Parts: sequence; structure tokens; C-alpha cells
Amino acid sequence: MYNFRNDYSQGAHGDILNRIVQNNYEVNPGYGLDMHCMKAHNLIENELGRSDVDIHFISGGTQTNLLAAAAFLKPYQSIIAIETAHILDNETGAIEATGHKIIEVKGVNGKLPTSRIDEVMRAYGSEAKTQPKMVYITNATETGTLYTLKELQEISEKCKEYGLLLYLDGARLAVALTAETNDISLKDIANYCDAFFIGGTKNGLIIGEALVIVNDSLKPGFRYMYKQRGAMLAKGFFMGSQFEALFENGLFYKLGRHANEMAKKLADGLVSAGVELYEKHYSNQIFILTSDEIIEKLKRDFLFEIMILPDGQKVVRFVTSWGTTEDEVDALIGFFEDVKNEK
Amino acid sequence: MYNFRNDYSQGAHGDILNRIVQNNYEVNPGYGLDMHCMKAHNLIENELGRSDVDIHFISGGTQTNLLAAAAFLKPYQSIIAIETAHILDNETGAIEATGHKIIEVKGVNGKLPTSRIDEVMRAYGSEAKTQPKMVYITNATETGTLYTLKELQEISEKCKEYGLLLYLDGARLAVALTAETNDISLKDIANYCDAFFIGGTKNGLIIGEALVIVNDSLKPGFRYMYKQRGAMLAKGFFMGSQFEALFENGLFYKLGRHANEMAKKLADGLVSAGVELYEKHYSNQIFILTSDEIIEKLKRDFLFEIMILPDGQKVVRFVTSWGTTEDEVDALIGFFEDVKNEK
Amino acid sequence: MYNFRNDYSQGAHGDILNRIVQNNYEVNPGYGLDMHCMKAHNLIENELGRSDVDIHFISGGTQTNLLAAAAFLKPYQSIIAIETAHILDNETGAIEATGHKIIEVKGVNGKLPTSRIDEVMRAYGSEAKTQPKMVYITNATETGTLYTLKELQEISEKCKEYGLLLYLDGARLAVALTAETNDISLKDIANYCDAFFIGGTKNGLIIGEALVIVNDSLKPGFRYMYKQRGAMLAKGFFMGSQFEALFENGLFYKLGRHANEMAKKLADGLVSAGVELYEKHYSNQIFILTSDEIIEKLKRDFLFEIMILPDGQKVVRFVTSWGTTEDEVDALIGFFEDVKNEK
Amino acid sequence: MYNFRNDYSQGAHGDILNRIVQNNYEVNPGYGLDMHCMKAHNLIENELGRSDVDIHFISGGTQTNLLAAAAFLKPYQSIIAIETAHILDNETGAIEATGHKIIEVKGVNGKLPTSRIDEVMRAYGSEAKTQPKMVYITNATETGTLYTLKELQEISEKCKEYGLLLYLDGARLAVALTAETNDISLKDIANYCDAFFIGGTKNGLIIGEALVIVNDSLKPGFRYMYKQRGAMLAKGFFMGSQFEALFENGLFYKLGRHANEMAKKLADGLVSAGVELYEKHYSNQIFILTSDEIIEKLKRDFLFEIMILPDGQKVVRFVTSWGTTEDEVDALIGFFEDVKNEK
Repeated sequence: MYNFRNDYSQGAHGDILNRIVQNNYEVNPGYGLDMHCMKAHNLIENELGRSDVDIHFISGGTQTNLLAAAAFLKPYQSIIAIETAHILDNETGAIEATGHKIIEVKGVNGKLPTSRIDEVMRAYGSEAKTQPKMVYITNATETGTLYTLKELQEISEKCKEYGLLLYLDGARLAVALTAETNDISLKDIANYCDAFFIGGTKNGLIIGEALVIVNDSLKPGFRYMYKQRGAMLAKGFFMGSQFEALFENGLFYKLGRHANEMAKKLADGLVSAGVELYEKHYSNQIFILTSDEIIEKLKRDFLFEIMILPDGQKVVRFVTSWGTTEDEVDALIGFFEDVKNEK
Repeated sequence: MYNFRNDYSQGAHGDILNRIVQNNYEVNPGYGLDMHCMKAHNLIENELGRSDVDIHFISGGTQTNLLAAAAFLKPYQSIIAIETAHILDNETGAIEATGHKIIEVKGVNGKLPTSRIDEVMRAYGSEAKTQPKMVYITNATETGTLYTLKELQEISEKCKEYGLLLYLDGARLAVALTAETNDISLKDIANYCDAFFIGGTKNGLIIGEALVIVNDSLKPGFRYMYKQRGAMLAKGFFMGSQFEALFENGLFYKLGRHANEMAKKLADGLVSAGVELYEKHYSNQIFILTSDEIIEKLKRDFLFEIMILPDGQKVVRFVTSWGTTEDEVDALIGFFEDVKNEK
Repeated sequence: MYNFRNDYSQGAHGDILNRIVQNNYEVNPGYGLDMHCMKAHNLIENELGRSDVDIHFISGGTQTNLLAAAAFLKPYQSIIAIETAHILDNETGAIEATGHKIIEVKGVNGKLPTSRIDEVMRAYGSEAKTQPKMVYITNATETGTLYTLKELQEISEKCKEYGLLLYLDGARLAVALTAETNDISLKDIANYCDAFFIGGTKNGLIIGEALVIVNDSLKPGFRYMYKQRGAMLAKGFFMGSQFEALFENGLFYKLGRHANEMAKKLADGLVSAGVELYEKHYSNQIFILTSDEIIEKLKRDFLFEIMILPDGQKVVRFVTSWGTTEDEVDALIGFFEDVKNEK
Repeated sequence: MYNFRNDYSQGAHGDILNRIVQNNYEVNPGYGLDMHCMKAHNLIENELGRSDVDIHFISGGTQTNLLAAAAFLKPYQSIIAIETAHILDNETGAIEATGHKIIEVKGVNGKLPTSRIDEVMRAYGSEAKTQPKMVYITNATETGTLYTLKELQEISEKCKEYGLLLYLDGARLAVALTAETNDISLKDIANYCDAFFIGGTKNGLIIGEALVIVNDSLKPGFRYMYKQRGAMLAKGFFMGSQFEALFENGLFYKLGRHANEMAKKLADGLVSAGVELYEKHYSNQIFILTSDEIIEKLKRDFLFEIMILPDGQKVVRFVTSWGTTEDEVDALIGFFEDVKNEK
């Protein structure tokens, strides 16, 4: 089977795995207080061009997001997010389970327009409503689109205007930052966000996201929350080792770039084969419109996901990753070329 | 000032107040275990035509709703409600503060179409989403409209089909059940809902809602929750006394009917005076479209609320209650007749 | 039956009741933003000798305590309290339900020695433990004993030394402040505590406690929490009216003093009748050691509570209140005189 | 440095590490629905001698315990645990953060006497208190002692008598089950507990605990909670792979036995060297009484932990693990022999 189902179906990239093996028999302090976590911290700060952030390594995106909500908000404060936000309907109500409401607004191309922030802030303000305090965005977005630097700046300014915190879910940050049309850097993200996370699970780690806290007021006490919610691993050095390898020698970018290249090759090949793309592709996700018949055939050799639109039409999603090979892409393009030729 | 702002601006109806005074120096057991709570319980059961429900007296609607969510749902279960639901944006995230997500769907005339339940149940089902478990409806609705018996039956059947609990917020149940077009009785509500509350605060009590639990599986342990969330009053007999008076001699219905009669008189008078109703009126809320100029004049002698539509237009809401007098209604109609004559 | 069961078995003192009746038909704004709440606020500030506190009226002690925990603490912070603290085992885990741990320490005479605070702060400090942040004390205590001014000052200093908040549960504050041996004033309490509440339910109100927030850092956002947890009553003026009456003309002190006088008369009478007091009495609670036989006889005409000591011995508690009459006290003394004479 | 600090200072045992490497490039379904999780499940069921349990792999002990509390208890239910229980003061209030109270009782030799359960059940029962519903025990205990089969049976019977759930924290279960004096098997644990976890983090895994749910009523919905609290890893196969290796060829027992053998060798050697053991040793923890001077010398070459007794005396803890070598043990014994000879 050729795998285009998602970007977390395999273990770790070889360089990450080697580092885990290499460090395995060392004796290290527990709870993230080891030298590998420290080195990973320093390497990430180097990318951010600053040395004043707090960084916590957390095993997955849901846990990172729920920790941010629990740690950064007062009990009556809420989060603004668009309808496709991962926290809204893909994390089993993890945010609400910390006691916080998510205010759902309508996105455009998977992104949050600043006008929505204005609308929410106009509608809220009474003590009978929650107090909006955090804006949640994702880059690359759930549909693979990208924020531009200008958009990020504008959202940041809008947040400052209203005293809102800006939080960026970077589960797929590597493919965003290495996409062809991207004009944002990690430095920019640290400049414009109060906190964000750099996704590892979908970019070559076994597990791990790096939560970066930029805003000083959000830093105190985080490790208490981290322990309380079960996120502080006894063997934190396992996380540190992976991020250390990821940020040495530009592996983080290399893996993201590879996923994007495979996606571009695939998209070009599909278009050549006459396949209709459902949406323009920007990063490592490609959506196509196709028939039930084709889907059934595809299932014989390929792994992928199917979404059903409100009108009943089916959209197939292909995801490339650090682990996708040219052969896999060629096989998938070949499938659609055969379909085209059969007609 | 003439008061049309809401139905909770005054203390208690005279019959309720007298009962409070009359029982004041009695010595009663605490925590809702007194004979007045018991009598109130029996009187309500009499209205329901059954003697198998649990009834808890709670000081307000927000507290009643949050207790229902906390007591009836498992931590990963969620509530389906329409966009105007009181729990969504008028209770400061009280439901989310108990850990539960509210799934917002689009209502029609302030009511929940069963098709929305189907849509949610089709979209949910994965462990990455919450598990919908309760349907929340309100009668009379937030905009004063009413469920018909047929609608209530259909929602109840739909809930049973999916294993969902049906919960009815009856903050304004008295005006619903005594409205001109109503065809629902308290018996029906107990037959079709798993739990519901009978509002007292907006129908002549100082404070108090009666939560009725019909579904046996929801009954055990409720008093623990009731105490834990600070809802169990030391002097529960104060609540019992009020509900005892409310359900003796049909006062509950009499007060609701009065509010509706005043609303009808007002609506008829306003229409005669050429005022444009924003929505058809069914119970004790009347919405009109008017100008800033008129609003400014109205403010001199009348209390009311203003809502701003997305297009910027202003809607004025007049609410009648058990305490509204004919004189007040005449004064308000007179105001608009004067406006008409001035033109 | 003569009532010595507790101090919340009757409705309201006559002056309170009259005020409720008197204000009943007024039209007032909702949610505690009315003139009665404002007047009550001013009257209380007058007693405190300052005009910079926030005051919120809440229907009961459990709700007040849980709101304080939820509003004043970060999710990983905990509360230090002695083993008899009401929040520990008499509020159904209300504090824990807000997510906070209570650190139980051993009290002396129902009071918290400052050495216990030192012990906790020495034992805590690791991120694997919660962060102690609030000290909870009660005055009069659960067993009716009283803090002295010196003790209150020392606890306050100790809290400041460690950056802890000092919170005082004043469910029975009126009897404390009017007790024979008391040397504390409301002014002192406001000077030494970060927040505290003045109990009304046990001192002549139907329901109501006044939460006073002195520490500026604890004030912002409280009304959001107040609404979110269902504590903000639509008819807040009902609470305001009661506290207005309670703090006019010294009624607060008068009622507390009466309870103490009745307790003293009772204690003196019991001792004369040869009854063995279990503990020295300081305020409105009297504990006696007695036999099963006497308890059975007592039950015929008197209401009271029984506690069982670890060694199986039974302690009977008599509580006096604003509503206790001399006749009731005489009857109870008479009972024990008869017992004495029968021997 | 020779490591006797704890049993989680190194990565994984070689057999575990090899399996991770071996499975690394496979394509597997996410979220614990892969064949490695299934095989691990089957291997564990084989040890339990039954095929009716649910098993969930969770990254650490705190997270496992908090999930159990959140999933198995109603909001007003509480947990009985002894004063040294890990959940009480070593998990930053994780249980309370799920809303549940822990009722602390006094243990004997690190174990829970059934008489404590009786005492709690006698003292509880009122709605003003939480409802005790789960008993939490640990084996091996926090101080390295062991439950006997008879003790486990008695606790289980006592729990059934009161309708309490029995939950066993098995962070160090491997050393318990392979200790010299142990008479309990995994089968017994499954027979007598409603749920328990088999610790991997302290027995050769990188991360991972296996929560086994035996009681049918506790099974439904757990995966929702698992996802909601951030415990469901995208790459669940990483956990499955480790447990698969751990339960093939008896590695689980082999590693536990090794730790115990090293501990025994160490204890014997220390006693020979004239060292005073603070407590009898049963599994992989050895506690000794020693002087500040010795502690300072020890620190030069050895890693270990120091506990301070209430009387100020210092206790040094040495922990052995699957990774402890004979050379390390010899070095530590040698140190104390030198101390002895120097005298």
C-alpha cells in the first residue's frame, strides 16, 4: 500500500531515530531538566533570533492546545477560532474540558479574517457572555493554506488593539515555513504571537510538539500545569533528544521542504492526468474531486482520507510527508494516468 | 417610569410574598428537606399527572442549566442547541465551565428543527469529536415563540432514535403554557422530556426554578451535585414556600395568562397605532422596528431593551409580566398614538 | 419543639422581612446593579472604615467559598485549611470541583496555628506538588471558638511572608464580633484579610453572604465568575435589600449579640444544673457530654445535633440564634434541672 | 557517576529499543488502532488469563491516574488513599484538577489497612460530603513494600462490601510481581481490581503505562476521555511496539527480577558493610540512615535521593532498575566498605 493518508503514519525520520538510539543509555535527569532539552531549547531560540522565550516539549497537539487554554486564560475567558479549527471539532472538546468556551467564527480559505475579531469584540462585552481573550490560528491551516506575513501582522495588531492573546497552532508549521509561496519565518511568528507551537509529530518525530511562550506574563507557573495535566514526561530527555536532532543542520526545514516537493510533484502530475483539484494546494495536502468508482479502485493500493461535502460530493485528500517517496508519488500519478487513458 | 424591560424587575407577586411572610417564623429542617418543599413537590406532580419525578428547587436559570449539564453528562458528552439558546451566549460560558461543549446549530423562529439533530449526528460519531448526548430547547423561546405539541413530540422521538436526552429550559414556561396558540400542557412536557425546569423567577417568585427530573437514570446522586455547586440553600423552605403558593389555586397559570393578556393588549394597541412589529408575537415579548428618534423619546418614560440587527437596524423589545398593569400598557400605547398623530 | 439545632431554621428577622416586603413592588435593575445593593455596599464599607473594597452578595457559604477558590487561584494553586474547616468535609468537595486541592493541617481549638503554615511551605515547593496560595480560616470557628486580634495579625503576617492570600469564612462572623471575649472588629478583618465574607444566612437573613474583596489584584473579572457559576441572581435587589436592613442601625451586631447572650444564659444554666460542658463556650454553640438515655428524653421536646467522638462518646450541640427566645433557653435549662433533681 | 537516583534515568532496554527501530518505517494506523497495540493487548491478556479486558496505553503515571479519576467517577465522588499515595502530593493536584477529592487516610508500612475503609465509610454518607467511590492502592508501594495476596483479597472484599471500585497504581508493578516475598500474580490483580495499570516507564520502556480496565461498567466511552485529555497519541503504534516487546518472552518479568536482584545484592552488601537500613527492603528501593558527611562523599560518584524525616534525620534512597549493573552495585558497596574500614 502506498501511504497518502496523513503525515503521522510512520515512526521517526532516520536522523531523529539515530539520536534516540545514540542517547538511549545515557543517564539523564528527569522531567525535561536535562541537557538535551536545554540544547533543543537553545537551537530553537537560535532560529527565533532571541533568547528570552520559554519552551516546553509536549507529546501531542491536543495536549499542547489544552495546556495553553488552561494556563493562559482565566476561567471566564474564551477563545476565538474559525469553524475548521482543530480545537473546535477534532479534539473531543479538550478546550471545553478545561472550562473554556470557543467562539466559532467563519473563516475564509481556512484563515481568520481580522473583521471577525472586530465582530466578536462588538458582540461581546457583557458579563453575561464570556470574555474573549485568545485568538487561535493554525499555520499551515487545516486545509493546507498559508497565512501571509501581512495577514499575520494584521491579526497581531488587531489582537493588541483589543488586548487579546495570539496563539498559533503549528502542528504543520514546517510545511508552512518551507512552502513555495510562504513569506513568514520562525522569527516572525515569535514576533507576532504570544505563544505558538512547533509541530514535531507531523514532521519526522515519534512524538513531540515544542510550545514556545513569548509573552512574559504567560510564563510563570507553566511547569505546574504541565505536570498537573500529565504532560510532563519522566523521561523528558526523549523529547529533548528529538528536537535537538530536528533543529541541528536544518533538518526541520529539510523535512518540511521534502513534503512540499512531493506534494507539488503530485499536484502537477494529477493536473496533467486531468484530475480536478478541489482547492488550490499550498503545502502538503492535496484535495481532489472524484467519483465513488475511482475511490473504490484507489483503495486497492493507496491509503488516503475521504471527506463528504454538505452536497454529498466526495473529496479525496492526499497528504505527503517527510517519509513520502518519489516512487509513491509516481505510483499515484500513474494510477490517474491509467484512469485518463482508459476513458 | 413604566417598566417593559423584562419580567424580573420586581420582587414577588403578592400571594407569594404573603406565603413567605406567613411561614417566616416557623422552624423548618434545612436543605430542601422540609414540608413546604414536599408540598410544592406534590402540587407540581399533581400538575404533571404522575408521582415519580424528582424535583429540586434552584435559585436561577443559569445554575439550573449548569447543574443539568454537570449531573446528566459524562465529561466527553456535549449539548445540541440553537444559536439563540440562553446557554450559548447569555450564561458566561457556564456550561463550558462544567467541561461540556455546546454544539451550535441554526434555529428557525427561535426553535430547533429536528433536521439539525440529524445533521449533527451524521457529522459526529468519531472519538475525535465530543459525543452529543443532550438536546437543549427553550419554551417559550428566547424570542417569545412557542413549540407546538407536534414539534415537541417530533424532537422527543428524534432524541430517542439517537439515544439523546431532551432537556427543556422553562424560564418562561408559564407564558408558553398559557399563550393563546399553545397546545402543550405540563403533562406533555413531562412525557416528552427527560428533564426540564419550571421557571419561577420570571413568573412571580423572588427567586426559584423547579428542576423536574423525569428520566430515572438521571435521578441518583443529584443532591450531591446540588450541594457541591452551591445550589442547595440552607433555608430551602424559602424556595418550597414560594412554589407551594405558586402551584396552589392555579397561580402559576394565572400569572402567565396575565402577562400574555397584557402583551396581546399591547400588541393590538401598537398595531392600531401604526407600529411595525418586527416579529409576530406569541407570548410576553413584543419586538418592534423603530427609529433612533422614537427610541430617545421612549426612554423618557419607559424601560425597555434595544437589540441591534446585523444590518444596524434597531429592534425594541417590550416584555410584559405578572406585574404589568393595564395603565402601563395604556401609557405605552398612548405614546405611540401620540407619535402617529404628530406625523 | 424548642429549636437548638442550628442558626438557620427560621426565615428572616422581622426587620429584614419588613424591608423585603417594603421594597417588593419597586422596579429595580437586575443582577446586583440596583440601589439597594449599592446602599448595602456603602453601609458595609462604612463599618470597614474604608471605601475601596468590592462587595458581592452571594446566596450561601458553599457558593461563596467555591467562587473565591475559582476566582482567586490559578489551576495549580491550593488552599491550606485545618481538619475541621467547612470546605474540607461539609461542602461535598465544592473546592475540588473547581480544580483546587485543599491541604489539610491540624488545628488547635478549631484554629490554625501559624506553625502549620511554616510546615506546609517547607514541605511544598516542588512542581510535583501544588503551589499553596491561600490560607482559609473561619471566625467564629466550626466549634464556636474565636480568633484573637493577635492571632489574626500573626496569620496575616505569616501569609505576607510567603505570598499567601488570607481568606476568612465569616458564616458566623456576627457572633464572633459580638462575643464577650472578642477583640476583633470588621475594620481589623478588612485590614488583615485579602478577602472574607460576612454571613447573613446564619444571622437573620433569608439567604445571603457578603463577599468582601480587599486585595485589589483579586477584584477584576469577579462578576464574570459570579455569573458563570450561577451565583448572580436576576433579582439581586433582594439580596441588597436584606443587607441594607442588616447594616442599618446596627442590626448585624444586635442579632449576633442576642445569640451570644442566649448562649451564655444557657451555658450558665446548664452548668448550674450540673451538666458537663464538652468544650469551653465562646459564642453561640454549646457542646455537652451526655448519655444516650438523656438524649432520648431530650428529643421529645428539643431539636439539636449529635456528634459521635472517635471513642464512641456522644456530644450534643446546642446552637442559639437571633431567633432564640428566653423561654426556649429556660425550657432547656429546666429540662436539665429536672434531670438533676431526679437523681 | 553511578546511578541509583531512580528507575527512569535511562531510555529503553535494548530489546524495547530494537523493536522501536525495527517497526519505525512501517505504515500504521494512528491513535492506538494498529496491530502492535492489538498484539500487545493480546499478550497482556494472555498474562491475565482472560480475554475480556480493555487496555489503553498512556504515556505516564500521572496521566493514567487522572484519566481513571475523570473517567470512572461522577463529579461528586471521591478517592480513598493513604498519606504516601503518589496521587496525593506528587502529581501537582492532578486528581483535584479533574474535580475529585482525595480522602487521605493513614497507611501502615505504605499500605492501606481495610479498617481505614470502614472508618471512612462510617464518617461519610451525608450529601454534605463527597461520596467515596474508589480505593487507590499502589504495588510496589511508594516505599517499596508489597501487598500480599491476602491483603489484596481483603481490600477487594471490603470494596465490594461498600460498592467501591478498587484501582491499583502499578508504576512499579514489575518489581512487585518478581520480588522474593511476592505471592501475587497479574491474574490475581485482574481478579481483584476493577482497573489497574502496568508500569512501563519504570521498567524498561521509553514511556508508557498500560491501563487495564476489568470492570465492564468502566469501559464505555474511555477512548473519548483518552483523546479529550490529550493522552491519545497520533503514533499509538510507538506505545504498542514497546508493550509488544515487553510482554514477549517474559521481558517484563526479567527486567523486574533484575532490578530486585541488584537491590538484594546491594542490600546484602550494605548490611555487610555495617550500614543501617532505615526500612526492611522488599523490592528495588533501599533506604538507609546516614550522616551528612557520608552524604557529601557519596555525591562525588553516586546519584541518589535524600529524604528528610520530621525529626530532621536524613534518609538516603537507592533505587535499582533494569539498567543497574553489577559493577554499579559493587562500586556502591565498595564505597561503604571503605567507610567502614576508615573508622
